[in-house]
Amino acid sequence: MSLSSQPYKGTRDYYPEQKRIQNYIFATWRRVSERYGYEEYGAPTLEPLEVYAAKSGDELANEQTYTFTDRGGRIVAIRPEMTPTISRMVAAKRQELAYPARLYSVANFMRYERPQRGREREFWQLNVDVFGLDEVTADAEIISMADALMKEFGAKDKDFVIRINNRQLVNFIMVQYLGLDETQAHLMVKLFDRKDKIAEAEFNDQATEILGSNAKEGLAKLQSLMNAKKVSDLPTEIKTSLAAVELNEVFELLDLADVKSVKFDLTLMRGLDYYTGTVFEVFDTDSDNNRSVLGGGRYDGLVGMFGAEPISAVGMAQGGTTIENFLDVHNLLPNLASTTDIYIVVLGGAQKAANKLAKHLRSEGVNVELDTTDRKLDRQIKTAVKKNIPYILFIGDDEVRDEIYTLKDTASTEEQKIGFSRIVSLIRDRRRTASDNDIPDLD
Amino acid sequence: MSLSSQPYKGTRDYYPEQKRIQNYIFATWRRVSERYGYEEYGAPTLEPLEVYAAKSGDELANEQTYTFTDRGGRIVAIRPEMTPTISRMVAAKRQELAYPARLYSVANFMRYERPQRGREREFWQLNVDVFGLDEVTADAEIISMADALMKEFGAKDKDFVIRINNRQLVNFIMVQYLGLDETQAHLMVKLFDRKDKIAEAEFNDQATEILGSNAKEGLAKLQSLMNAKKVSDLPTEIKTSLAAVELNEVFELLDLADVKSVKFDLTLMRGLDYYTGTVFEVFDTDSDNNRSVLGGGRYDGLVGMFGAEPISAVGMAQGGTTIENFLDVHNLLPNLASTTDIYIVVLGGAQKAANKLAKHLRSEGVNVELDTTDRKLDRQIKTAVKKNIPYILFIGDDEVRDEIYTLKDTASTEEQKIGFSRIVSLIRDRRRTASDNDIPDLD
Repeated sequence: MSLSSQPYKGTRDYYPEQKRIQNYIFATWRRVSERYGYEEYGAPTLEPLEVYAAKSGDELANEQTYTFTDRGGRIVAIRPEMTPTISRMVAAKRQELAYPARLYSVANFMRYERPQRGREREFWQLNVDVFGLDEVTADAEIISMADALMKEFGAKDKDFVIRINNRQLVNFIMVQYLGLDETQAHLMVKLFDRKDKIAEAEFNDQATEILGSNAKEGLAKLQSLMNAKKVSDLPTEIKTSLAAVELNEVFELLDLADVKSVKFDLTLMRGLDYYTGTVFEVFDTDSDNNRSVLGGGRYDGLVGMFGAEPISAVGMAQGGTTIENFLDVHNLLPNLASTTDIYIVVLGGAQKAANKLAKHLRSEGVNVELDTTDRKLDRQIKTAVKKNIPYILFIGDDEVRDEIYTLKDTASTEEQKIGFSRIVSLIRDRRRTASDNDIPDLD
Repeated sequence: MSLSSQPYKGTRDYYPEQKRIQNYIFATWRRVSERYGYEEYGAPTLEPLEVYAAKSGDELANEQTYTFTDRGGRIVAIRPEMTPTISRMVAAKRQELAYPARLYSVANFMRYERPQRGREREFWQLNVDVFGLDEVTADAEIISMADALMKEFGAKDKDFVIRINNRQLVNFIMVQYLGLDETQAHLMVKLFDRKDKIAEAEFNDQATEILGSNAKEGLAKLQSLMNAKKVSDLPTEIKTSLAAVELNEVFELLDLADVKSVKFDLTLMRGLDYYTGTVFEVFDTDSDNNRSVLGGGRYDGLVGMFGAEPISAVGMAQGGTTIENFLDVHNLLPNLASTTDIYIVVLGGAQKAANKLAKHLRSEGVNVELDTTDRKLDRQIKTAVKKNIPYILFIGDDEVRDEIYTLKDTASTEEQKIGFSRIVSLIRDRRRTASDNDIPDLD
């Protein structure tokens, strides 16, 4: 009986063609993170389950984790997210780290969910976090980076909107302004979270039920809240609260930083229980792909859970498949060639010389695949074309004698006769052009 | 009660300082793999357990895997190695792939073992494999790459030795030459595998026991085998076998490719059951670290297990911590600075201008961390130094007025007055020098 050749349900095999796209996404993530002075870290795949039970929310911890007992009796989970892990790491080196600590990672996660477009059981994520900044400059910096990230991928301001809210503001509204008790507040938060997914009448019905005896006054108050396009549109007693003032400062800082696609959204909650202040989420404005493509917020309480003095934190995360779908919908995925520069096609008895040439080219940093099969010419060429390798070099007895080779541009099929040194400079120029595209020219 | 801040047993937290070293190792792996025309792929963390049960050997599949039953009742394992996965992937796209398929990956794995120096429960590995080449050119290519990899890390020929053997040759010797039955052959292979770890007398005692009635003749034969330094030193009936002829060809090809540190070693077995031909392993020659730092071989039977027509394969793998320890022992670990180019220290009320400068520098591709804390000068500088950021830029009212900034080299503490464009060119030159070190100059 033979084994199945399919990947485990909800996971992907990344063949070179798909891996190129993923590497393009990873490189963009790293470039933007490093441009803001964030440094990369890495972390274990497994954590004790209790790390998630405490603050990630019941659904994530109880229903979606890949949990098991290891051979030593420890109850562990494959990480479903990074925030608890990086908080643990910061707690472990609380004294040794330099603050503010600006940290990022590119890592894989698993969640037991029903697989569907843009949702996989195993997925890759960028996580960017700054630790040790109480001030809203941190919130603004992280949101600016979210904007920069979208732009670096080629998105325009009109392609996305960054919705921003504040958890303390929501708490203030629930308790101080609407006068709800804990149960009512909890239900109202859940209702706010669903607002975009249900009709207005249904929202009002459910709100009435939650508000109980205060329904009439409460509904009127809710109406005025929902009409607020800016923090300054909120009723005076709300907009003078500390949370509202801070949220307003975030918008001002984003304006100074030239971040345009922002929107105040009192219904934005974000699922995770650990957020304590600013929350934000970037949505695709395309009506066919009206999805969240990035999210984050402030979570000042998490490091303190690991036995260290509390330390403030703001972070964000973006999923690899999420951004890939966004780029696909917006036609922003680049056409990526192979990492191999040259495929050497060998004619007749030139194998030994071809070996030498390949070795020499490699010693100059050129990426060379050498055909060692002695197959017919057209089959060798077909391999190079199928692999999307930019150049094909032909070597036969004449080429060995003259030390001049035929180099074919695989895409244009143009050919040129070329010597060793010129091949090397051609490849170096091509690489340099590609990497200069990452570093824009001086104006 | 607070949660533990320690990582899961046998796993590592990679803080930026450790992550830089890991990234250096990953970059070297990728550079060498791509230089030989290998393309990167990615794969799921989980596989059905049965994938390992079949061919990886009992110890790995039954005792060392992280195995559990998922919420859908599937028995899965966190991958303990890559070979079965990449074989599965090749089987799944048997028709679509271009051959020879040259593939590599950098990925993490888990094995439930007792953690010790150089052995972790979670570890990272380079895997390099070529599919679709029956000829020994493939074996020689992979071994040449192993040599190139060690050299790229800065190792000299004297620092390592590549021991090479052939599984078919071992089978031939056991059955044809020594006339052993299956049980005897199995025991003898295990004994060969342990030869370097036990005294000669013990080896002889155990061999005598296995050989039984033929002990005298068998021991003499074994003696002559162990004395063979080269394939050609073997008794005629062995060295004319197909396996010996092929092994000899591998050595000849390696000689042509200028691979010097090779050694024929009839006792090299490699633990995994799937090898079918050449096996090899690179050992540190340092007596303090006499360890295996890389291994591989031919495994022609694995793809066929996944319902596809068989396809030949040769591969190798190297562990991240293994090579890190090697580089450490041989003093080959480079001194790695932060990925951040410049830390901006802000004096007095220059925060707004500093923000603008940071934004402008970033738009030119410079990696900038901006201090937004309004702390005292010395505390800001301390952060930059602690993070090993190469340059510190000071900005205060004078600098804002003159648009000339003080730039300090963190290592040498030398300072210069410098304008915007010159900062950008300085950083670009520094980056280019670093990347040119990867691409050696034309001679």
